[in-house]
Amino acid sequence: LINSLLNGPESAGDPATGTASYKRAFKDPRNVHHHIVMGHGAMVANSMGQPWRGDYVFNSGNLILDLLHNFFLENGARTHKLRVYELTDNPAARQMLGYLFVRGGVHAHAYALAFEELTGVEIKKMLPIPKIENVALPESRPFEDKGFHRKLYRFSPDDYKEVAAIWHGQALDGSGPLEVVDGPPEGRRLCETRRRRRRLHPRVPPRGDLRDGAEAVPEGEMTPAASAMALRPGGSSGPQPWRRPGAA
Amino acid sequence: LINSLLNGPESAGDPATGTASYKRAFKDPRNVHHHIVMGHGAMVANSMGQPWRGDYVFNSGNLILDLLHNFFLENGARTHKLRVYELTDNPAARQMLGYLFVRGGVHAHAYALAFEELTGVEIKKMLPIPKIENVALPESRPFEDKGFHRKLYRFSPDDYKEVAAIWHGQALDGSGPLEVVDGPPEGRRLCETRRRRRRLHPRVPPRGDLRDGAEAVPEGEMTPAASAMALRPGGSSGPQPWRRPGAA
Amino acid sequence: LINSLLNGPESAGDPATGTASYKRAFKDPRNVHHHIVMGHGAMVANSMGQPWRGDYVFNSGNLILDLLHNFFLENGARTHKLRVYELTDNPAARQMLGYLFVRGGVHAHAYALAFEELTGVEIKKMLPIPKIENVALPESRPFEDKGFHRKLYRFSPDDYKEVAAIWHGQALDGSGPLEVVDGPPEGRRLCETRRRRRRLHPRVPPRGDLRDGAEAVPEGEMTPAASAMALRPGGSSGPQPWRRPGAA
Amino acid sequence: LINSLLNGPESAGDPATGTASYKRAFKDPRNVHHHIVMGHGAMVANSMGQPWRGDYVFNSGNLILDLLHNFFLENGARTHKLRVYELTDNPAARQMLGYLFVRGGVHAHAYALAFEELTGVEIKKMLPIPKIENVALPESRPFEDKGFHRKLYRFSPDDYKEVAAIWHGQALDGSGPLEVVDGPPEGRRLCETRRRRRRLHPRVPPRGDLRDGAEAVPEGEMTPAASAMALRPGGSSGPQPWRRPGAA
Amino acid sequence: LINSLLNGPESAGDPATGTASYKRAFKDPRNVHHHIVMGHGAMVANSMGQPWRGDYVFNSGNLILDLLHNFFLENGARTHKLRVYELTDNPAARQMLGYLFVRGGVHAHAYALAFEELTGVEIKKMLPIPKIENVALPESRPFEDKGFHRKLYRFSPDDYKEVAAIWHGQALDGSGPLEVVDGPPEGRRLCETRRRRRRLHPRVPPRGDLRDGAEAVPEGEMTPAASAMALRPGGSSGPQPWRRPGAA
Amino acid sequence: LINSLLNGPESAGDPATGTASYKRAFKDPRNVHHHIVMGHGAMVANSMGQPWRGDYVFNSGNLILDLLHNFFLENGARTHKLRVYELTDNPAARQMLGYLFVRGGVHAHAYALAFEELTGVEIKKMLPIPKIENVALPESRPFEDKGFHRKLYRFSPDDYKEVAAIWHGQALDGSGPLEVVDGPPEGRRLCETRRRRRRLHPRVPPRGDLRDGAEAVPEGEMTPAASAMALRPGGSSGPQPWRRPGAA
Repeated sequence: LINSLLNGPESAGDPATGTASYKRAFKDPRNVHHHIVMGHGAMVANSMGQPWRGDYVFNSGNLILDLLHNFFLENGARTHKLRVYELTDNPAARQMLGYLFVRGGVHAHAYALAFEELTGVEIKKMLPIPKIENVALPESRPFEDKGFHRKLYRFSPDDYKEVAAIWHGQALDGSGPLEVVDGPPEGRRLCETRRRRRRLHPRVPPRGDLRDGAEAVPEGEMTPAASAMALRPGGSSGPQPWRRPGAA
Repeated sequence: LINSLLNGPESAGDPATGTASYKRAFKDPRNVHHHIVMGHGAMVANSMGQPWRGDYVFNSGNLILDLLHNFFLENGARTHKLRVYELTDNPAARQMLGYLFVRGGVHAHAYALAFEELTGVEIKKMLPIPKIENVALPESRPFEDKGFHRKLYRFSPDDYKEVAAIWHGQALDGSGPLEVVDGPPEGRRLCETRRRRRRLHPRVPPRGDLRDGAEAVPEGEMTPAASAMALRPGGSSGPQPWRRPGAA
Repeated sequence: LINSLLNGPESAGDPATGTASYKRAFKDPRNVHHHIVMGHGAMVANSMGQPWRGDYVFNSGNLILDLLHNFFLENGARTHKLRVYELTDNPAARQMLGYLFVRGGVHAHAYALAFEELTGVEIKKMLPIPKIENVALPESRPFEDKGFHRKLYRFSPDDYKEVAAIWHGQALDGSGPLEVVDGPPEGRRLCETRRRRRRLHPRVPPRGDLRDGAEAVPEGEMTPAASAMALRPGGSSGPQPWRRPGAA
Repeated sequence: LINSLLNGPESAGDPATGTASYKRAFKDPRNVHHHIVMGHGAMVANSMGQPWRGDYVFNSGNLILDLLHNFFLENGARTHKLRVYELTDNPAARQMLGYLFVRGGVHAHAYALAFEELTGVEIKKMLPIPKIENVALPESRPFEDKGFHRKLYRFSPDDYKEVAAIWHGQALDGSGPLEVVDGPPEGRRLCETRRRRRRLHPRVPPRGDLRDGAEAVPEGEMTPAASAMALRPGGSSGPQPWRRPGAA
Repeated sequence: LINSLLNGPESAGDPATGTASYKRAFKDPRNVHHHIVMGHGAMVANSMGQPWRGDYVFNSGNLILDLLHNFFLENGARTHKLRVYELTDNPAARQMLGYLFVRGGVHAHAYALAFEELTGVEIKKMLPIPKIENVALPESRPFEDKGFHRKLYRFSPDDYKEVAAIWHGQALDGSGPLEVVDGPPEGRRLCETRRRRRRLHPRVPPRGDLRDGAEAVPEGEMTPAASAMALRPGGSSGPQPWRRPGAA
Repeated sequence: LINSLLNGPESAGDPATGTASYKRAFKDPRNVHHHIVMGHGAMVANSMGQPWRGDYVFNSGNLILDLLHNFFLENGARTHKLRVYELTDNPAARQMLGYLFVRGGVHAHAYALAFEELTGVEIKKMLPIPKIENVALPESRPFEDKGFHRKLYRFSPDDYKEVAAIWHGQALDGSGPLEVVDGPPEGRRLCETRRRRRRLHPRVPPRGDLRDGAEAVPEGEMTPAASAMALRPGGSSGPQPWRRPGAA
């Protein structure tokens, strides 16, 4: 989804015949490296193109201080997301933000409850930061209505059982009890983005001549393993591998 | 002033009702973090969003070398400001630049005189760098006409008395004697920027419901201390704290 | 294990009575932040204390180029580990390195086979880089003798099934067939490091007076949840949480 | 003081005659740049020599979030200082740390009170972080006994008058009322460090031949202004300027 | 050439009379420092303005690993250049890229041959990466037709004679034998860019009054040496020094 | 030379048999990456291991300002080298420094003369910075006695002829006329460092079994080209390639 939002208009034209296929999409871009270096894949960087740094990790060994840092971070992230919300009216971006406000609120709430358990300080009373309730945002309200702000998901069948000692009691808005859920939330079918050939940066390159061949890679050109790799590049690879036309 | 220039058009619309209030203001921005991360506050960064670094400080312990570095920096800053001057015809930006050319010229001149005192080298004869006199710039001439290029301000009543041993003699343009002035220059009334609610990032959040409450925070909602903090956030805080409407 | 190696001698003495408990352990350290900032926890940094950076991630979107980068990285890591091997004769460090040479060799080999499948180039013939066989290192030979260099572990029961299309055939040393193993390798009981009070950076602080109380935290001082958190701080927390003496 | 601690043993011998005057002082140093680049002056860097960065400044424009960040920073600084305390038994370093624990505690307390005023959350109940009371540290207790933990100094005669709305009530240890003090704390005479010639990096260089001249710079060699600059290099210069022997 | 492409429209108007001469050229720029800091000179930075870093250099001391890194870099550079090619239809930029694809291909090919000599692995069979032949790009084909992909230039008359042991045999496309050429390729007359006064950042400043003088610097104002320096600023200086009008 | 100084004691023992060959050499090192990452090759980094950055390059387009920066850099480098001189009494290091003080002095002098030509300011009168004459340093005096401080070498037979317009007149110490020399200074035979096998990071690895083979690589194992590459790794490679014993 994020990549679809970022990529903007698709490539137009065919670079091998002398048209600048991405020229229109990258007029006045802030982050031209997203195309040149990463080929529209994920970057470990902020929206200015500045890389994430390992010293962002704060791990002092003092539990209270580490919780305080994480509680700060959750609320800082919420603030930044509200600012991003102000910058766009793209419905998909806003729906994603709406969901994140609700789920990020769970994290901040959980840290606050851990604080309360350890120190007795009711830091949850500061929430939300900034003081704009999720229900006030049209794109968050549907997720609140479904109670997503009361659920903490526990993916591992065997670990983190003690989390219930923290995540219990009433929701901040009094809408019902907090709940630990085993297993992931019910998902939706992944959106099948229409796969397109990206002639200049295919993951598995056509081996014939570019101009004739690319549109007519013969069936069976790739070995089964190559086909598998192209279709399932694994965790560290980017989205949307190149596929032979007609491949399922 | 700088923030006013940077912010450009004000927020339009009300984000809580689904309009993207800052979308127009941040079309094709170079530094989107100025909104997302800093909320239009001051950033310790250059115009590319790259942070200031502590190793920019040069402090060798050798007075001649340190003066040489500072003399270089003053003239480098002047060069960069001339380049910025070329990029804008905003009258407020140009007036500020015009003032800075004059006052920065004082600094370069003072370093040059210190050099002359210590080494006998008349480095002042290189000034100005670049070789464009302040009086040639329409926005600087008025400040030169008032003699601002001949005055060195000494804010502390007790310190830096020896500066007169350096800052004396004739101005570079022969317009009169250099002068050490005790106390700050006469200022002007601070421009009272019209304070606006910033609904999504108020410094002191309204505690009621966002949509009704923000426009009608009841008098007395904040304690006196909270009100004081909101109005005077202190040195490290940003500009324009949130204020109740009607507060003086 | 790594932390045990790094920490060196334990704290000696009691800081609250004026002894410098870690003075001896941190004489002439290269990375004093490992104590001051991280409290002996994990750092996302190299051995010089320089943070990891997000632009180390290379993800071009071209599968051949990405494989080439990863193949390079695996062999670069092997080279660096051989250099570390030269710097120490600590048996625990050397045993860990011996294991890593074998397992890292699996990764390099797997990338090489993927190359061969996609391009037909037998890049595996370059291995190992540097040209020192694992069996030549006394600490690696036992792991080679057990065939650890022929096994690729597949942890997920449902994913990555296609990996067998790459990881098959004979081992580079002709010792037997490559093998995909479902599930993790058989482990060993985790070493129970003797837990010690760290008076100055406990994860859950004793709440009584420091000098008397620390040695005599009354049973039941912590709530059950606090106790659970202290004993199981979760993924992002560091090692060895503070524990009440006598706690199981 | 810090520089004295860092510099360790003084230069021995005379470099111009072929002895390596600082060789002994800089055996196995972590930060050799403190000598080479800064000449023992202040560095805008951490103890690993990594420069301070402008993006350490967090200024979101949301008062609650900014207070939360500052409250975290004060306690993080306290944690790091406790770790430094563990690394040294130098009495001067420990006395300085003892003082800083007390004064830093004032800052954390003040932020906590501001929180309470704005949100009603009694975050002060978490203090101190880590849970080691200042009075438990022998070097802090004398400053606590004098009530330094109850005083907030207000240097400006005209500003920050509203701080009393935050800083009032009882001290956390119940030892008495919090107090706003106008003006700086009573100081002590600055320690007059014995000034020594540093032959290779004098701030104002002797102009004669080095080997004879340095020990016998004739009176009056420097102009009065040069002398003044050498003795009072101003805010951005480092410590201990070069002085003619015999100068007052 | 690059600078011409980057500079875009020339300065319009005369800043000293209050017009913003570069305003139009720098609307919505990604890299405003190219004007402010570097005056349109070369920057040791990427297209995002991030500086080159010395730790990009990989030099392990193991020849195989170093070759592997360089082989990766050549192909990574080709990938990035193909992405840039997609972003522009400027004929000059595309012609330059077309040339670079051919010459960069020589480098990748040469590294591959060195690999083959040392290890027997025919890594050249992977080329080109990405799998788009140079002849498929209209701007590269003319250089391929001239055989530029078969020539390795050897500039030093005395060194690198052994390169022929690597660079021999058939070209990858079977078009003829690889060839080592002594001396540089035949060049073309350097394009004489029309020199313009840049009033605000001349390399040798006019010394007269700016407004009258700049258009009428008298012949002979500069000494011969100054004139020479202005015309030939040497390796580390930028392009297009300031010149007197009428100077040859 | 530098690498010899840095490497310190040679590897002792044979890592493949379980001895830590470099353990003694790297006890308490500041820059352990010089061994682990670079294998004792050149690093584009300072003595703290911090990489060089492209934004160190200052190129404003204003000739006066650029000269001022370079003049500052030359004197800053001299200051740092004097500080290094204070840290060591290694005769080879001191002799190298002695030479560099003399040759670096030529650079500072040349920049000063260029200034004088362009601006008339006799900045050369500040030299040397710091105010310690080269002749006062025992290791510099021999090079001064040979007049090395009066010679500017011009390596290109055709370029930079105009440099004589700057570099002429008397030396600063009145010892004779400045002189432009065509061609490089007369050198000395390169010291033939005894080449040693570095078993774990050979540039061209022995292909036989490590333990027997390394001491007995059969003649002719490498092809002629491999041998050539091993002996002459080119500009970007490090020092001291691996060589077969007995190779000329």
